[in-house]
Amino acid sequence: MSLRAAGSSDSPALTSPSNRLIIADSETNANLYFATGFLAPDPFIYLQSNNQSHLLMSDLELDRARSQSKVDQVHSYSDYQEKAKSAGIPRPGVADVVHRFILEQGFELDASAEWLVPNDFPLEYGDQLRECGHTLKTKAPPFFENRSLKTEEEVDAIRLAQQGVEATLDEVLDDLRQADIKDGFLYLDGKLLSSESIRRSLHIGMMEKGLLAQHTIVACGRDACDPHNEGSGPLRANEAIIFDIFPRSIESRYHSDMTRTVVKGRATDVLKRLYDTVLEGQMMGIAQVKHGADGQEIHKTITEHFEKQGYETGLRDGRMQGFFHGTGHGIGLDIHEPPRIGKIEQYLQAGEVVTVEPGLYYPEIGAVRIEDMVLVTEDGCRNLTSYPKELEL
Amino acid sequence: MSLRAAGSSDSPALTSPSNRLIIADSETNANLYFATGFLAPDPFIYLQSNNQSHLLMSDLELDRARSQSKVDQVHSYSDYQEKAKSAGIPRPGVADVVHRFILEQGFELDASAEWLVPNDFPLEYGDQLRECGHTLKTKAPPFFENRSLKTEEEVDAIRLAQQGVEATLDEVLDDLRQADIKDGFLYLDGKLLSSESIRRSLHIGMMEKGLLAQHTIVACGRDACDPHNEGSGPLRANEAIIFDIFPRSIESRYHSDMTRTVVKGRATDVLKRLYDTVLEGQMMGIAQVKHGADGQEIHKTITEHFEKQGYETGLRDGRMQGFFHGTGHGIGLDIHEPPRIGKIEQYLQAGEVVTVEPGLYYPEIGAVRIEDMVLVTEDGCRNLTSYPKELEL
Repeated sequence: MSLRAAGSSDSPALTSPSNRLIIADSETNANLYFATGFLAPDPFIYLQSNNQSHLLMSDLELDRARSQSKVDQVHSYSDYQEKAKSAGIPRPGVADVVHRFILEQGFELDASAEWLVPNDFPLEYGDQLRECGHTLKTKAPPFFENRSLKTEEEVDAIRLAQQGVEATLDEVLDDLRQADIKDGFLYLDGKLLSSESIRRSLHIGMMEKGLLAQHTIVACGRDACDPHNEGSGPLRANEAIIFDIFPRSIESRYHSDMTRTVVKGRATDVLKRLYDTVLEGQMMGIAQVKHGADGQEIHKTITEHFEKQGYETGLRDGRMQGFFHGTGHGIGLDIHEPPRIGKIEQYLQAGEVVTVEPGLYYPEIGAVRIEDMVLVTEDGCRNLTSYPKELEL
Repeated sequence: MSLRAAGSSDSPALTSPSNRLIIADSETNANLYFATGFLAPDPFIYLQSNNQSHLLMSDLELDRARSQSKVDQVHSYSDYQEKAKSAGIPRPGVADVVHRFILEQGFELDASAEWLVPNDFPLEYGDQLRECGHTLKTKAPPFFENRSLKTEEEVDAIRLAQQGVEATLDEVLDDLRQADIKDGFLYLDGKLLSSESIRRSLHIGMMEKGLLAQHTIVACGRDACDPHNEGSGPLRANEAIIFDIFPRSIESRYHSDMTRTVVKGRATDVLKRLYDTVLEGQMMGIAQVKHGADGQEIHKTITEHFEKQGYETGLRDGRMQGFFHGTGHGIGLDIHEPPRIGKIEQYLQAGEVVTVEPGLYYPEIGAVRIEDMVLVTEDGCRNLTSYPKELEL
């Protein structure tokens, strides 16, 4: 959501000041995992100063952090807790320990020294560290500029995850192809197919391929008209079913993200036209992706295309209809990361991996969303998604 | 980690002031999920004032929040964004929108009015709201006092998850029982068994039962001596293997947590003695759990038992050995929540679900950890774990 100018990742203006501080758990905080390569379920402390990176770890995680993390120095939290006690603090908290560590390490503490923290840095520690005299400055994502620009290795990790998704969706759509239609519902080997049963098959199939998936969307008919509805109940023939699949690789921790819309049986003509319009919009969007392109312009192109085709966006009968979400988002260690392709000016950079996922949602017709992941390059983009786009199964 | 006195959840002193504010995503923020019953991957805004709860939702989530959340009122974020623009802010951010909402809703804004926020409330929004004149006060967990005290329904959800874990571990230990030992390694149907292969079987087995598991520990020999090492490589006969299994129920979102230590083959006498000592310590700990008991005392009892048996704790050859983690933690929507049973004074309350999981770790002997979940009651506790504790398979 933040405004950001395009720029090189090693611009001195962006990387200074060099003091950075994170206090979080790396299971949920991707910045911390990115900086340390170390995964832990409970909060720990990361500091970067003068191009040296430091961790303060509990006794429980100390040895593991020393062997698994990629930071320069791993220190014992309890050592600095003891030092804080010696300095007269009877029950030192996290901020007291950080303060003591900064003093002992002799990081520059002149008036101009400031610590850059993520904008979601915990307020309590922020208050306490400021009381100790430190200057904290929040930074909107990306906290590490180079997190947005993916290395070849990172792109490979995303592609590998995506390959597992495509193989799994193949298995599941084969089931749908073989399913029988009775009274408008779908049956495989006599069993009724539902959003829940298909989601379960997808999750198990992905787990077998080393992918951890949650909240996979398998939404049929009206459910699909609410873009984040996961879908529930029996699947119906001749209605649009949206599959939105965005697992994390257990090994690499990188995500992939793909959406396809299918119909088991025959799509109505109005649904076919909706599908073609979304697909055209997506193609127009992808065609515009390149280094320096403005996400706002890409989003606008798609929006105008939809309007030209007669698909209006807005409230109707108290519900949002049309195209009422962004066109895409960056992806990596987080499923949603900068940049956004949407209503706000934001310039794409070569090396970013972004989704392009327009959709149109009308309860009386159905819903269509189609999503690929592309790698932004100097003169265009490389599509990391190779799954076919076919409406009718 | 916070100091907290035991007390009733409806004590007026704890529930006042009544203004509360959370800005987070409810996928990772259990307080927000607890307050709203609404799951969303991107941040949204929750306010509680005068016993009325409010959500401010993006267009994308507005309809779903209205139908799925349990708050009193769901408002459109973009409506208040427009109002902020009308009030002269050209590009209103999240804090501007919250400020506008508070003004429009006419919440009490006298000098004494303050907003209670979780201690991990985002610093950036905290700074901005204070600049707008609001008083924010951070609160250590539990942010909602009644989150610690589980209802019957919540206890059932935890038990149901635990039943799935026990059924899955049964299947996997049956495989281990049937495995052949060759050259000290384990083979099932000719295939070498490893931490990775067993973890994968556990994860798929749990997924089939509606449980989402990550980082399940299957750690053998020296790996297990590092309590948070997930384990890797081939499993070996006649060495301790620690299974620590803590999935989340996909449907209820509650966790369960259990640890067992087993040996395929024969345990050495020193390992058997280590096992018996940990089991005795765990039984002594469980026997002390009841309403009003001090976690620090429980932890001390176990620590002293271990010392009396000659098992010392501390650094040796630069590594921590002995019993160097807490005895237990609360469990619920988060895998780790208050209270802690460890080195800090903390009084247990009837209705809390806590783990009791002492362990002893010596590279030259092996590692043993045994963990049950218990529900604290007025005069003792109810063990929610019914899985056998047998060392040798």
